[in-house]
Amino acid sequence: MTTEFGNSDVNTRARFEAQRLAYAPLMFQACRALRDFGILENLSSARAKGLTAAEAVAKTGVSRYAAALLLEAGLASGLCDCANPTDAEPRFTITHMGVYWLRDELTRVNAEFNHHVCYGGAAHLREALLEGRPAGLPAIDSTGAKTVYEALRSLPQNVKTAWFEFDHFYSDGVFEACLPRVLSKGDEHVVDIGANTGRFTDLVLSRSRTARMTCVDLPGQLAVLKDNLARHGDRFTLAPTNVLDPSAPLPAGADAYWLSQFLDCFSEEEIVSILSRVRAAMRPDSKVFILETFWDQQQHDAARFCVIGTSLYFACIANGNSRMYHSEVMRQLAAKAGLKVTDEVKHLGISHSLMQLGAA
Amino acid sequence: MTTEFGNSDVNTRARFEAQRLAYAPLMFQACRALRDFGILENLSSARAKGLTAAEAVAKTGVSRYAAALLLEAGLASGLCDCANPTDAEPRFTITHMGVYWLRDELTRVNAEFNHHVCYGGAAHLREALLEGRPAGLPAIDSTGAKTVYEALRSLPQNVKTAWFEFDHFYSDGVFEACLPRVLSKGDEHVVDIGANTGRFTDLVLSRSRTARMTCVDLPGQLAVLKDNLARHGDRFTLAPTNVLDPSAPLPAGADAYWLSQFLDCFSEEEIVSILSRVRAAMRPDSKVFILETFWDQQQHDAARFCVIGTSLYFACIANGNSRMYHSEVMRQLAAKAGLKVTDEVKHLGISHSLMQLGAA
Repeated sequence: MTTEFGNSDVNTRARFEAQRLAYAPLMFQACRALRDFGILENLSSARAKGLTAAEAVAKTGVSRYAAALLLEAGLASGLCDCANPTDAEPRFTITHMGVYWLRDELTRVNAEFNHHVCYGGAAHLREALLEGRPAGLPAIDSTGAKTVYEALRSLPQNVKTAWFEFDHFYSDGVFEACLPRVLSKGDEHVVDIGANTGRFTDLVLSRSRTARMTCVDLPGQLAVLKDNLARHGDRFTLAPTNVLDPSAPLPAGADAYWLSQFLDCFSEEEIVSILSRVRAAMRPDSKVFILETFWDQQQHDAARFCVIGTSLYFACIANGNSRMYHSEVMRQLAAKAGLKVTDEVKHLGISHSLMQLGAA
Repeated sequence: MTTEFGNSDVNTRARFEAQRLAYAPLMFQACRALRDFGILENLSSARAKGLTAAEAVAKTGVSRYAAALLLEAGLASGLCDCANPTDAEPRFTITHMGVYWLRDELTRVNAEFNHHVCYGGAAHLREALLEGRPAGLPAIDSTGAKTVYEALRSLPQNVKTAWFEFDHFYSDGVFEACLPRVLSKGDEHVVDIGANTGRFTDLVLSRSRTARMTCVDLPGQLAVLKDNLARHGDRFTLAPTNVLDPSAPLPAGADAYWLSQFLDCFSEEEIVSILSRVRAAMRPDSKVFILETFWDQQQHDAARFCVIGTSLYFACIANGNSRMYHSEVMRQLAAKAGLKVTDEVKHLGISHSLMQLGAA
């Protein structure tokens, strides 16, 4: 296989990578099947000895045809190795990448989110970007919703499960690391903007006996949250609000305003509007916390890759106009709203940064 | 970002590759849009200086939002580089892989085949493999066809175009290299089994004034072929045959039987049936030629990757039971049919091998 592009190592590698991208959809689905049929698990158990297709059939009960195709796809994709491909019965072993694909929870959550939530709609990314609307949403939503948030409650169960696993996986763990900064005294009144299912509010109320919370979200969301947090009695207040309504005020005079993985759901204009209303509601000495995964602040290629990939989900599925932001863009939007960054902590949890802001 | 899997270089790489696979569908579509919106072409023109998102907007007219998302996706996928990601206006350049994605015809043909023919159906690969039927075919076919070959004529035009470009790209060029072996005397009578649109027959009749051809295919296919080859007058004969009918004989007593990229459309059992009928039809000294892309005989990772990926297309779209074979499997199937390999030439064209066989 030679082409006008030459055969240097760099070109050989580039040509290979280009084909990986060209066959990405088929290979993605083959690698899911390799995992879901139990073949990868059996390869892992077989360790360095590996398995032939015939042995994989004996272990899993899939057809010889299926086992051979998937083992070869695993080889092509990097999940498997094969030392004797020209033998009549090639023997396949699992690679490091295969172990991640099989066992790493982040990888599984990302892959299932991509399959159940994004796969069908991703085919409409082009229209989504040209028209600034989530053109892929109808692939999972039959209610004609304008955003995935409107559609969320009526999504098919497997789609909903994948969505919430993804949503929660990225926040679990990181809240803990933020707590000492938000509760520097311990008895703060915190407004949780975009309180969602109440995980952060729950953590605050569980850790401090004197803190109070006000939860801002859409009424439907707050109904769920209220049930989830019933054991905290009257220590939290509900403030049903559509933050997209530029005339909807936010609760005034709190010690802290908490916006976690929330602003990435809005366009730049909407962020300025929301932060301006935070600015209007806060005291001169209130603190504002923005917890986000900024694509420019990732330590690892893997994390940067996921953060950038998630922007594509926002474009074609979620709302058509939001994204995982660049930290500098967020600073500029905050400045437009009359806020200035007073502190920044990077590399919290999987890939988060915590911006602390005050009145400019 | 640290996990229980550790942070060695090997693990860092494996974790990154696992995320690339997990986000493959979104990234595939983003990279197509990056190309189709003209951003990649403009990056190529900008050479080492590269473009910011704002400059890409000025060059292409897409929104700032679209340009930024796609440039970042290009960075994540390896089509772009960025030397200053933490700056407010990151500047992106095209990589070697980006040049392949933009300009290499093989890459484009593969990617568009994957998008137009395979993307929707690939989501049904799991069912296809469990049930041994092309469960993804209904994603492109509304006629209830059992195989893609039945559906071909009624497929939407963009799907059909992608299918034929893919089909022809892989055979163009390689026929020429095979000709001296098939026409060793020059006046042979050759049976072209699976003659398709008549490209090989046309080449033989154009190059030799004394060769004669008999074309075997389904009646509908032969009607197209007859029009295509009208200028060759009576030098070719049509033999309408459904080769899947085990009682359908093949034309007897020819000098050579030619099966090019044909047996990969059939299951192992069907191949034995077809080759047995070749064996029954041939003279003791007839030659049989099988031209295939065997996955074990590829010189380059890129070619092996494409051949294996194409097996997945057969599984979920084409027919649910055929594939790109291992050369040793083909030798065994030929032996079952009473044929033995007398010569093999590897590395013809993009990724082909030519097996020459005779009566065993």
